[in-house]
Amino acid sequence: MNVSAELLRRQCAAILHAWGLPGDHIEAVTHVLVAANLRGVDSHGISMLTLYDEFRRNGKLTLKPAVRVVRESPVTALVDGDGGLGHLPGLNAMRLAIGKCAASGVGVVGVRNANHFGAAGVYALLAPERGFIGAAMTATWRPGIVPTFGAEPMLGTNPIAFAAPAKRHPPFCLDMATSTVALNKIKLAALHGKAIEPGWALDDRGRTVTDAREAMKHVLLTPLGGTPELSSYKGYGLATMVEILCSTLTGASVAAIRNQRDPDAARHNVGQFYLALDPKCFREPGEFEREMDDLIDALHGTKRADADQPVLVAGDPEQACFAQRSREGIPVSDELKATLRKLADGCGADWVLG
Amino acid sequence: MNVSAELLRRQCAAILHAWGLPGDHIEAVTHVLVAANLRGVDSHGISMLTLYDEFRRNGKLTLKPAVRVVRESPVTALVDGDGGLGHLPGLNAMRLAIGKCAASGVGVVGVRNANHFGAAGVYALLAPERGFIGAAMTATWRPGIVPTFGAEPMLGTNPIAFAAPAKRHPPFCLDMATSTVALNKIKLAALHGKAIEPGWALDDRGRTVTDAREAMKHVLLTPLGGTPELSSYKGYGLATMVEILCSTLTGASVAAIRNQRDPDAARHNVGQFYLALDPKCFREPGEFEREMDDLIDALHGTKRADADQPVLVAGDPEQACFAQRSREGIPVSDELKATLRKLADGCGADWVLG
Repeated sequence: MNVSAELLRRQCAAILHAWGLPGDHIEAVTHVLVAANLRGVDSHGISMLTLYDEFRRNGKLTLKPAVRVVRESPVTALVDGDGGLGHLPGLNAMRLAIGKCAASGVGVVGVRNANHFGAAGVYALLAPERGFIGAAMTATWRPGIVPTFGAEPMLGTNPIAFAAPAKRHPPFCLDMATSTVALNKIKLAALHGKAIEPGWALDDRGRTVTDAREAMKHVLLTPLGGTPELSSYKGYGLATMVEILCSTLTGASVAAIRNQRDPDAARHNVGQFYLALDPKCFREPGEFEREMDDLIDALHGTKRADADQPVLVAGDPEQACFAQRSREGIPVSDELKATLRKLADGCGADWVLG
Repeated sequence: MNVSAELLRRQCAAILHAWGLPGDHIEAVTHVLVAANLRGVDSHGISMLTLYDEFRRNGKLTLKPAVRVVRESPVTALVDGDGGLGHLPGLNAMRLAIGKCAASGVGVVGVRNANHFGAAGVYALLAPERGFIGAAMTATWRPGIVPTFGAEPMLGTNPIAFAAPAKRHPPFCLDMATSTVALNKIKLAALHGKAIEPGWALDDRGRTVTDAREAMKHVLLTPLGGTPELSSYKGYGLATMVEILCSTLTGASVAAIRNQRDPDAARHNVGQFYLALDPKCFREPGEFEREMDDLIDALHGTKRADADQPVLVAGDPEQACFAQRSREGIPVSDELKATLRKLADGCGADWVLG
């Protein structure tokens, strides 16, 4: 079943309304989740409502949070999310960074006391809309990545999104977890009884696991690189960099430390980090965008290893999916439909998906 | 043979002086190269002089460049290196970023028309000396990384360095090429007739190569991740991000495009990118550094996969080496000594290494 973005937004909003979220939060969460679905990032789309419902029922969410700016300078700010979902503080923070960038050339904004915020790329992509380069990162409430040579998770999947405007082409948009793969890939392999690649996951003694069901028992992801031989210390370093910028810099909770010091904290206190940068501080207007086109063309023109497999540029698959789903709607599986129905029924929300 | 940093600096300076470099450039190059040796990053230490000599003899270097700021705002600047070596413009740019950060909380400075600048970490580490977070990146004059699904190099090894101050601990310092491994590792394996890991290098049809000598024929590095199955598109995306920030943003030459448009350009026109950020815009003075200590302690305390192999934090090995080599001197192999001797004799420089 394909559903229009508009209808999916209405269903999402109906559930969030029944949970008691204020209007601006409903709008933010709905926008970010369905934007991920439109771009084909279904793992971070409307299916996230299940996790948010779990947080809500476990008392981990402030349902009517007072999101506010707690520190500010002409080029920096710190936003407090008051323990609510991360989408509204995230959008506010990125927009604040963009506003500062428009006035001063650079904007850097951190968020503390937030929560899961959906797909990082949605935030980074707000910058190219205004002609700016944008970056968005988030920590997570639970560690999943095991440091190189370790045997327990210490860092979130800590994603990095980076977007830059082009002229003829849609924006460049890298949106990557700093783990080798997403947990979803391992879940899917376990579901189908398939083996996973060596280097995706570890057991609780830090050894590589290729049995997907065994991997799902431990849920220990490797940092990008996968193994020490393939330089997993680089992915580990990047995940730590994201933790520093999102958590240590903002005063949010550090996943590795929370478990030891405050496992029963009332709120997850997840941190986020945003940057916006104006290319016009460095180039004449339009030059950057034209040369982004040249770079993207050059990369697309790379000699192929396999004639049938084009060389892509970060953001290409999501952009193609966005075009298709904007026309044809977003596929909603029977399983997802049943999940949403259960969520809607559970909180007395209107059912609009039909 | 172990040589004191001071003596190695004198030898380096003698050679650069004989080449006709001005005093401020000699000081900058010498400082950056020997700092890399002290930190154990010998691939980017004084042995780099061989490459710089090649550039010089091929007429690719401006020997008396006029490094100048060509654009500036309170929080951004663009530095032109006038076709000389990248060290002086790099140090100037990072110091400029730090100065802007001290005044405004953030500083972002780009460099164009430069060249190889040594080890990125040396520049990033200037920020923690002032209590700031620092980042340093550079593009390269020649592409080495093959995009995922490609069969020719399009991007430099485009390193990312990121440093943050702690209190009890030395600064966190990630300094990584966005390739899976450095070419040096493959060279070394070829020299010893050893096989290389699948995922390190490709042949000219884009296939994984494990024969190190075969790999050295092609010199085609993979992006971090190594293979599509281990998410090499992430390393490819990061390498492209560095190219965008260092080259497209600054107006430097894009490695992938230069080969097509301007292979005989008089200068390499390499770009660099620097960022400095003041934690005091987000936290009370001292809080950030204290919590960096907590994060580093937590990561060091990670349960180990192997009791004899400690879990490290980015910068640990370099810091240990720095302490040792500051006391005991820098090891100079007979081979390196012979190379330096040849360089010194070739340009009539004083020989001070004994």
